[in-house]
Amino acid sequence: MKLATYRDGSRDGQLVVVSRDLAQAHYATGIATRLQQVLDDWNFIAPQLQELSQTLNHGKARHAFSFDPKQCMAPLPRAHAYLLGAAYAREGGAATLGQAASDGLLGPCEAARFASESLGIDFGAGLAVLTGDVAMGSTAEAALESVRLLLLSNDWALRSLPPGHVQPCAAFAPVAVTLDEAGEAWQRGRLHLGLQTMWNGRKVGLCEAGPEMGVHFGELIAQAAKTRKVQAGSIIGSGTVCNQDGSKGYGSIADKRALEALESGEPKTEFMQFGDSLRVEVKGRDGLSLFGAIDQDVASWHEAAAAREEAQP
Amino acid sequence: MKLATYRDGSRDGQLVVVSRDLAQAHYATGIATRLQQVLDDWNFIAPQLQELSQTLNHGKARHAFSFDPKQCMAPLPRAHAYLLGAAYAREGGAATLGQAASDGLLGPCEAARFASESLGIDFGAGLAVLTGDVAMGSTAEAALESVRLLLLSNDWALRSLPPGHVQPCAAFAPVAVTLDEAGEAWQRGRLHLGLQTMWNGRKVGLCEAGPEMGVHFGELIAQAAKTRKVQAGSIIGSGTVCNQDGSKGYGSIADKRALEALESGEPKTEFMQFGDSLRVEVKGRDGLSLFGAIDQDVASWHEAAAAREEAQP
Repeated sequence: MKLATYRDGSRDGQLVVVSRDLAQAHYATGIATRLQQVLDDWNFIAPQLQELSQTLNHGKARHAFSFDPKQCMAPLPRAHAYLLGAAYAREGGAATLGQAASDGLLGPCEAARFASESLGIDFGAGLAVLTGDVAMGSTAEAALESVRLLLLSNDWALRSLPPGHVQPCAAFAPVAVTLDEAGEAWQRGRLHLGLQTMWNGRKVGLCEAGPEMGVHFGELIAQAAKTRKVQAGSIIGSGTVCNQDGSKGYGSIADKRALEALESGEPKTEFMQFGDSLRVEVKGRDGLSLFGAIDQDVASWHEAAAAREEAQP
Repeated sequence: MKLATYRDGSRDGQLVVVSRDLAQAHYATGIATRLQQVLDDWNFIAPQLQELSQTLNHGKARHAFSFDPKQCMAPLPRAHAYLLGAAYAREGGAATLGQAASDGLLGPCEAARFASESLGIDFGAGLAVLTGDVAMGSTAEAALESVRLLLLSNDWALRSLPPGHVQPCAAFAPVAVTLDEAGEAWQRGRLHLGLQTMWNGRKVGLCEAGPEMGVHFGELIAQAAKTRKVQAGSIIGSGTVCNQDGSKGYGSIADKRALEALESGEPKTEFMQFGDSLRVEVKGRDGLSLFGAIDQDVASWHEAAAAREEAQP
C-alpha cells in the first residue's frame, strides 16, 4: 500500500491512503490520523489500511478523491529519529550513521529555503526506510524484518556550513510504500531501481540504487541498534545514491565535484542558487512512479520572512 | 508549575502536574494527555495547567495522589529534536550544537543499559530547555522568549565509541519546570544553581551552572535557528556543567580525566562499571529539589536480554 500525509494545518497532518497509480486517495479516518500512530501499532493498524488500499485500488472506495502531491507534507512530517548512512560511499559503503534533523521534514513540493547561496546549497537523492521497534543488538537479518515502509528522500545539505551548525531538514516524496509495492525490485534490503534526478529541468543523474549499495538497509538498522534500541518510526536513510560509473550522472553536487576533482584536479560544478529547481523520482519496473516525485524550488528565507512581515497589518 | 510524565504502558506516557514540593501529583486529564501537545499549543493549554497547578499547591486538588518519581518517564519521552551544546567548554563555551538521540529518553530512575563496560561509560550532568517555535534567524533575545520549560539531564556518553555510532539516550529528572519555579536563580538564560552529582553514593561534583555558562540558552537556541526553524518541543541542552575551579568537582568523568591529564600528564579516573549508580539533583534557593533527582543504575543490556528470554514460555 501507499501512504501519504495531507496538509490540514496541524503539525502532523492527516493520513491518507493513495492508490497504486497515485491517481486517487482516501482519508484513513476511523483507522488512524497520523503515520506515527500506524508505526507505533503496525500489526493492528496496517491490515486495516491494507484493506482500504485494496478497496481504493479496485475503484470501490466511496469517498476517494483525486490525489494531489502539492497537498502533501512529508509522509512523517516530524519523526523522532532520522539516522543517515553513507551506504554508497566510494570506498564501498560503510555501516556508519549520523543523526540528521527530523523535526520539520519537508513535503515533496515545498520550497527549500536557505539563508544564503554562499552556504553551498546541495541536494542529495537517497532512499530511506521507516522501521518498527528493533531491539538493541539485533542482527542485520532481524533488523531487516523491521522495515515497514520505503521512502524517497532529498537530503538537503549546506556544504560550506561550519561544524557545530545543524544541517537543514530533508524533503520526502509524497508517498511511503510497503515493500510489496516495489515487487521484485526489493531484494534483501536493497531497492534495485534507478533514482532520476533533474536539476533545473535537466537530467543530471539516473543512479542505480541496488548493486552498489555497500551495506543494505538491514545492516544500517543493525548498526543503529548496536548501542541502543531503535524505536518504531525511526527513519534510516541510505545517504546519497551514487554509482562508480560516472556516466550514470550524480545524486548530489558534492559527488559530482568529487569526481571532477579526481579527473581534472578541481571541482567545476557550482552549488545551487536561489530560483533553481530539483526533481527526484523513481520509476518502478512497471514504469509507474513508485513514490511520486520530489519537486522543489530553492529559495531565500529572507524573502519569505520579508513577505510575511509585509502581509502583517 | 512542574510537569511530569507518568508511565502508563504507552510510548508517550501520561501528563501529570506535580506540586512545588514534589509531594503530590494530579493527572492533567481533560487538559492534555502528553507534554508534546502542551508545547504544540502552549498559549492555550499552559494557563489551564497553571490553574490546576495552583489548586494542587494549595492542597485543594480533588484527585491528587502521592508523587512517585519511580513511575516517571522522561518529561518528554520521545522528542523530535535534542540539540546538545558545549556551553561550559573550558575555552569559555562555544555556540556549537550537535544532534543527540531524542527518540527514547530515559526516565529518572530507569537503569542505563549498555553493551559493554569497555565502551567508556560516562555520565554528563547538564541543564536543558524545552522550546516553543523559533523562527529561522531569530536573535538570542527573541529565542530566549521561546523557553517554555527547564529540564535536568544526564547525558550518557560512551567515550570509546567509534565514530559513526549513535550515542545512547540521555535520562531526565522527573519534572520539567516553568521559569518562575526557579525564581531569582533564572537570570537571562542562565540558571544560577549548583548541580550535585553523586557517583556510587559519593559526592563528586557540585558545579555552578550560572556564572561559567559561556553562552546562555537564548544564544544556543539562536544558534540552532541560524539554519532552520526550531520546532516547538525541541530540547536544547547545555552540555555537561563544569567549572574552572577543580574544587567544585566534576559533572562527567571525561571532564575529570581532562583535568587529571593537565595536572599529572595522564587521566586516572576510570569510567563507570555495571552496578555503579549515579545521582544528579539541583536544589533551589529554598533548599527544595527543583527537578527531583535523576537516580540511575548502570547495567548490562545482555543480562536484561537474557532475563527476557528466560521469562518467555
